[in-house]
Amino acid sequence: MNFEYSDTAKDYLGRLKAFMAEHVYPVEQQLAHTNHAQNNHGEWQRWQCLPEIKLLKEKAKAAGLWNLFLPDSELAQGLSCADYAPLAEEMGRVLFASEIFNCNAPDTGNMEVLYHFGNEAQKAQWLTPLLAGEIRSVFAMTEPDVASSDATNMQTNITEDGDHLQINGRKWWTTGLGHPDAKIAIVMGLSNPENDRHSQHSMVLVPLDTPGVKIERMLTACGDYDAPYGHGELSLTDVRVPKTNLIMGMGKGFAIAQGRLGPGRIHHCMRAIGAAERALELAIKRGQNRVAFGKPIIKLGGNLEKIAEARMAIDQARLLTELAAWKIDTVGVKHAMTEISAIKVVVPNMLQQVVDMAIQMHGGAGVSHDFPLAGFAAQARILRLADGPDEVHKGMVSRLELKKYLK
Amino acid sequence: MNFEYSDTAKDYLGRLKAFMAEHVYPVEQQLAHTNHAQNNHGEWQRWQCLPEIKLLKEKAKAAGLWNLFLPDSELAQGLSCADYAPLAEEMGRVLFASEIFNCNAPDTGNMEVLYHFGNEAQKAQWLTPLLAGEIRSVFAMTEPDVASSDATNMQTNITEDGDHLQINGRKWWTTGLGHPDAKIAIVMGLSNPENDRHSQHSMVLVPLDTPGVKIERMLTACGDYDAPYGHGELSLTDVRVPKTNLIMGMGKGFAIAQGRLGPGRIHHCMRAIGAAERALELAIKRGQNRVAFGKPIIKLGGNLEKIAEARMAIDQARLLTELAAWKIDTVGVKHAMTEISAIKVVVPNMLQQVVDMAIQMHGGAGVSHDFPLAGFAAQARILRLADGPDEVHKGMVSRLELKKYLK
Amino acid sequence: MNFEYSDTAKDYLGRLKAFMAEHVYPVEQQLAHTNHAQNNHGEWQRWQCLPEIKLLKEKAKAAGLWNLFLPDSELAQGLSCADYAPLAEEMGRVLFASEIFNCNAPDTGNMEVLYHFGNEAQKAQWLTPLLAGEIRSVFAMTEPDVASSDATNMQTNITEDGDHLQINGRKWWTTGLGHPDAKIAIVMGLSNPENDRHSQHSMVLVPLDTPGVKIERMLTACGDYDAPYGHGELSLTDVRVPKTNLIMGMGKGFAIAQGRLGPGRIHHCMRAIGAAERALELAIKRGQNRVAFGKPIIKLGGNLEKIAEARMAIDQARLLTELAAWKIDTVGVKHAMTEISAIKVVVPNMLQQVVDMAIQMHGGAGVSHDFPLAGFAAQARILRLADGPDEVHKGMVSRLELKKYLK
Amino acid sequence: MNFEYSDTAKDYLGRLKAFMAEHVYPVEQQLAHTNHAQNNHGEWQRWQCLPEIKLLKEKAKAAGLWNLFLPDSELAQGLSCADYAPLAEEMGRVLFASEIFNCNAPDTGNMEVLYHFGNEAQKAQWLTPLLAGEIRSVFAMTEPDVASSDATNMQTNITEDGDHLQINGRKWWTTGLGHPDAKIAIVMGLSNPENDRHSQHSMVLVPLDTPGVKIERMLTACGDYDAPYGHGELSLTDVRVPKTNLIMGMGKGFAIAQGRLGPGRIHHCMRAIGAAERALELAIKRGQNRVAFGKPIIKLGGNLEKIAEARMAIDQARLLTELAAWKIDTVGVKHAMTEISAIKVVVPNMLQQVVDMAIQMHGGAGVSHDFPLAGFAAQARILRLADGPDEVHKGMVSRLELKKYLK
Repeated sequence: MNFEYSDTAKDYLGRLKAFMAEHVYPVEQQLAHTNHAQNNHGEWQRWQCLPEIKLLKEKAKAAGLWNLFLPDSELAQGLSCADYAPLAEEMGRVLFASEIFNCNAPDTGNMEVLYHFGNEAQKAQWLTPLLAGEIRSVFAMTEPDVASSDATNMQTNITEDGDHLQINGRKWWTTGLGHPDAKIAIVMGLSNPENDRHSQHSMVLVPLDTPGVKIERMLTACGDYDAPYGHGELSLTDVRVPKTNLIMGMGKGFAIAQGRLGPGRIHHCMRAIGAAERALELAIKRGQNRVAFGKPIIKLGGNLEKIAEARMAIDQARLLTELAAWKIDTVGVKHAMTEISAIKVVVPNMLQQVVDMAIQMHGGAGVSHDFPLAGFAAQARILRLADGPDEVHKGMVSRLELKKYLK
Repeated sequence: MNFEYSDTAKDYLGRLKAFMAEHVYPVEQQLAHTNHAQNNHGEWQRWQCLPEIKLLKEKAKAAGLWNLFLPDSELAQGLSCADYAPLAEEMGRVLFASEIFNCNAPDTGNMEVLYHFGNEAQKAQWLTPLLAGEIRSVFAMTEPDVASSDATNMQTNITEDGDHLQINGRKWWTTGLGHPDAKIAIVMGLSNPENDRHSQHSMVLVPLDTPGVKIERMLTACGDYDAPYGHGELSLTDVRVPKTNLIMGMGKGFAIAQGRLGPGRIHHCMRAIGAAERALELAIKRGQNRVAFGKPIIKLGGNLEKIAEARMAIDQARLLTELAAWKIDTVGVKHAMTEISAIKVVVPNMLQQVVDMAIQMHGGAGVSHDFPLAGFAAQARILRLADGPDEVHKGMVSRLELKKYLK
Repeated sequence: MNFEYSDTAKDYLGRLKAFMAEHVYPVEQQLAHTNHAQNNHGEWQRWQCLPEIKLLKEKAKAAGLWNLFLPDSELAQGLSCADYAPLAEEMGRVLFASEIFNCNAPDTGNMEVLYHFGNEAQKAQWLTPLLAGEIRSVFAMTEPDVASSDATNMQTNITEDGDHLQINGRKWWTTGLGHPDAKIAIVMGLSNPENDRHSQHSMVLVPLDTPGVKIERMLTACGDYDAPYGHGELSLTDVRVPKTNLIMGMGKGFAIAQGRLGPGRIHHCMRAIGAAERALELAIKRGQNRVAFGKPIIKLGGNLEKIAEARMAIDQARLLTELAAWKIDTVGVKHAMTEISAIKVVVPNMLQQVVDMAIQMHGGAGVSHDFPLAGFAAQARILRLADGPDEVHKGMVSRLELKKYLK
Repeated sequence: MNFEYSDTAKDYLGRLKAFMAEHVYPVEQQLAHTNHAQNNHGEWQRWQCLPEIKLLKEKAKAAGLWNLFLPDSELAQGLSCADYAPLAEEMGRVLFASEIFNCNAPDTGNMEVLYHFGNEAQKAQWLTPLLAGEIRSVFAMTEPDVASSDATNMQTNITEDGDHLQINGRKWWTTGLGHPDAKIAIVMGLSNPENDRHSQHSMVLVPLDTPGVKIERMLTACGDYDAPYGHGELSLTDVRVPKTNLIMGMGKGFAIAQGRLGPGRIHHCMRAIGAAERALELAIKRGQNRVAFGKPIIKLGGNLEKIAEARMAIDQARLLTELAAWKIDTVGVKHAMTEISAIKVVVPNMLQQVVDMAIQMHGGAGVSHDFPLAGFAAQARILRLADGPDEVHKGMVSRLELKKYLK
């Protein structure tokens, strides 16, 4: 066993931390406030991406800290999942940092889909500008009218019509839909109801300016619009795209989704671990600097025990996530199913607890936008639902566990 | 022992439920959406109170369901704390319902202060229009620069200057400050540093249009502005008010605060219990109506156990709160300190757990504004900080517990 | 609402506390040690009841503190369930106290069965000496070969043979079976498999000296034999008793069981609440008297918060149990099903938590027999299984909850 | 990063598992029952070591599975801490297995003390027979009269008298004291009160047949004597041993204790992880084989979620323990203090939870001696106190955490 990061990971981590220290942390609060003031309302048509973010993206690209998530050494840096994990953690410490390095969801997952399953034309048209950070993308899967925890419930209809596909349906929680640069959606829908349960759905590339595509509204999530990205509700009415927009083939939706999810969960979870580390740091600093009843708050009551519990929970969650990443790299997603599902439960719940503690240590300031804590709390809460609720992942873990004892 | 509500309580509760059923629930979602669309942004100067709310207030007043919180039978209905408890619970089921019956915080607490500690002139000027629901009030206590969990940290300065008082300082989490009808603040500050620890502070009535009073901004709390009420940051610069605006006397701030808090905690907690009941109801309905993996969601995994746990937690929390109310009525706040502090810990934490479960049962819908759950979650989170964080109240409970065994 | 105990309850409670203070607490540790030294081994044939216990029983009887559980004013004191509740709590503070007042399980439940469902001959033969405390009884229901959480699994066979009943089967967790005074068992078994699911079982009085009745062994429960009572494994081989030993009628087993359980759960739970109060008291005293790192242990880390949490949990659990008792008295067991199941979950779990904390506060002493804490811990753990595991009771609570929303 | 065990570890683990499968599991229940029947009483003078255990020890020694804990390649197998970790886990699956491989506490810790800090004569006299498994040893540190969580409280007195040391005091929780082969105690006591806080204590080798050494009694721990080892209370009255029995030097007690604890915690924790794995396995098997309400128990209610939670908790705890082991091997105990303290909290609490779940899945059988679960539960509970209570270790973790942010 060896718990040390590889030399590659250490090199990138060192450079990333230096970049964060020089360029990101110093402007974090100011950018958050500016964004909050400009964009924190429901009229997504007026949302803007801050020019400072665009500038930071240029700097990151110049520094070679770009597309770090993609394990291709020509198109990107060729980092393994395990090597990228600590980088995702570092980015997760600041709510908007991933975008700066072109490593933000759902673009990362969409780029992976195009990279692994897109044909050359699809790559040229969409993957290239996405990798360049020129456009943004969304993933339209969850639907308002059915329990989407069971993805086979999906009702959005995809039918063949000559050399076109016609799509009708309604999606929501389409993250990033409000962003001015969002240009392309990967839409998943029911195309082959005659097939077996996991071969009935397809994924189709739908440019957002296609007639019949309509953004109905942006949803608040835990009270926040998460502008300028947003979580959108989208209607698709007789939307027609050429068949060349189909990814991989009819009925291949679940096969693609499976491939998309493994590394994506590592990314989500490592970012969440970064958020938890940040929350713990903030809690300690606040607790040491504020005085009540004659003592620094952190020395009162059970506060020090809570700090220890946070440290122990974070370290355990990180190790499990790193194990999952290492298994993806070495034996593949299919043999890492327990770990991939386990971290999807463990990490967001851990973040929720750690942030809750950090908020409590901050008093009222903790729920305000002066600190990233309320944002982390929303991130944790949503992550317990997004990409499969806790319950579905626990179901996977227990199913695999029972299998060990079946003859 | 007798766990039955009094005939008076049953009568009011019946009428209140009928009113809610006829007038409030049917418009709940529409009003929430309208308010959200109009007011959910940081420019509080543009916030408006919905005319529908004003109309509902008229109807409630006409129905004799008005100022139910105030135990005075001339100015109000003369309900005891225990009789009001189930009414507060019923109101708590809808996020904006308390206001309709003129029973919303912080006005209730402020009216109690004026009622118990104000002189006749103060009552005539401020209590009368507050009881009529014509104006609204705020309570300015928490400060951004110190740990306000220890109220003796308060730094806002009140000095005597001839027949005036001069006030300098900064407050935040001044709830209701953004409301167009907010006219008067009760400001607590340090006036007599030479006195002993709990006689150094005073409470002063400060009209919000007094020169030197400035609303600096509205804070989001858990991502939400809670418009049109809002949580404000307020600066007081050389603010001068006549000495007649002083409540009770110099150095009486803590004495007044103590009197204000007992019944106020019952109100907060019973509303939170109502919110928890509502969340449980929504969870059951959603869980029964949505299907995944071939079954209603509520029948999957451990969901039914979670329903049972919610029921058990709510019932216990309610009983403890009712005991606290009954003790306030029969032996007084001073002999109910354990229960009053205990419910302040137990109830918001219970609500947080129950709502978290209900959100999980709703999937993505649970964190959106289509349901009141995200609002209840924010209410619970904030209530664990407001009016003394959990830790301060646990400190009180344990202190009283240890006292039993000291010689 | 009125949370005060009735005058009757207050009177009995005062006298009971005085008796405990004068006669029980002073000898508690000595009796526990003596019993432990003499009886703590698996050879139940050598177990003895301490003569001091017999003496205390005489004193309790003389003081009119006898059979307090039975709501009959001729045979006993005629206390309601709510009036008995605080008395059971007081008894629960000392592991062996209930027996002194002839209020120990399973004799109480068995006496209730005979009282409510036995005929005159059965009462004369068995209820009279039980009420006099001259003999002891056991209840044989749980079986080793099936999941007894589902009572309809019961396999012990009861068949009619002329004017006799013949019984074959195996039972375990037959509490009290090792006691030298145990003379009679109420055996529940499958008699009418042709009937519907809840009318297939019967209860039969089986004297323990009937041929074919064999005590196979005593089980340890959480490491302890709980001597001189014990939890026994019992085989019944062609056991024949006259039909007059049948209680109520063939197929009436579940009907009797239901009637037996309501008040029995109140008793169990209130005793557990007494145990929790005692554990909390011991924790505080130990925590105040032992010093580590220059401070009384109770002031270290989060210990005071844990004291507060224990107080809040106990008070809530007691209120819920008192509500259940009051409902049994006023509207009957059938309308108190939610509460009766809820306390069966809430109280033992609460006790487990509180005792765990108290043990931790005691260090090594906490798990030894120098304090009653390890005994309380075992009591809590077993109570989460006995008389229906947590899961079955949560199932009942959720089922009743969902029913509210079914059309 | 590399999460694979080394080839050495894999080789030993394979052979150990084969040995367990062939020799230990098949006799586990029978040996447990025999031991329980013979030894489960307080008269430790009659306790016997089962001859089957002695035979198994011979077999293990012959198989080269002996003294695996000791990282010396001449005296033992030369396994690193990380390589030994999975072996300790495997042994932890059966309550009595460690002894078979001469890897049981406290002998392992005592052997380490002698190995690292003993002189040649001490090694020859005591380490040699201990390594041969011919005798057993105890460690006498905890005292009944003081809070031993603060080890500086220790009062047992060690004074110099010519070329002898005289010892007076009282110890308890001296594990293994009841074993017929226990011959030697390492006694820690206060020898140099004039020194600074961590240089006041010494460790002395005291043969158990030295005049003045008296076993006062065996303590039950969670109801169990843990025979034939036992937890003893020991009085030392004017006990005289030659100065050559002093380990390392006067005042070196804490220095030795520190060195003893690092690897010892890994051993304790890995055994506890093995116990948790075993409990989970038993829970799954029982849950699949017992039927209630028409389904295997494991499919009822939230049981499958609990299985998943156990898997996730165990895997996280194991990873943290393995990290601690790896750090001990690579950077040393001093740089692994956070992890060493963290696992001492995390693992026993995890085991307590997992076993509690497994017991619940077993019903009454779970608390009996028919399964090792009650034993594991006691192990977990005691481990939360032994070798520093949770609170002390959380204190260490938080102290190190805060240090990161101090200038």
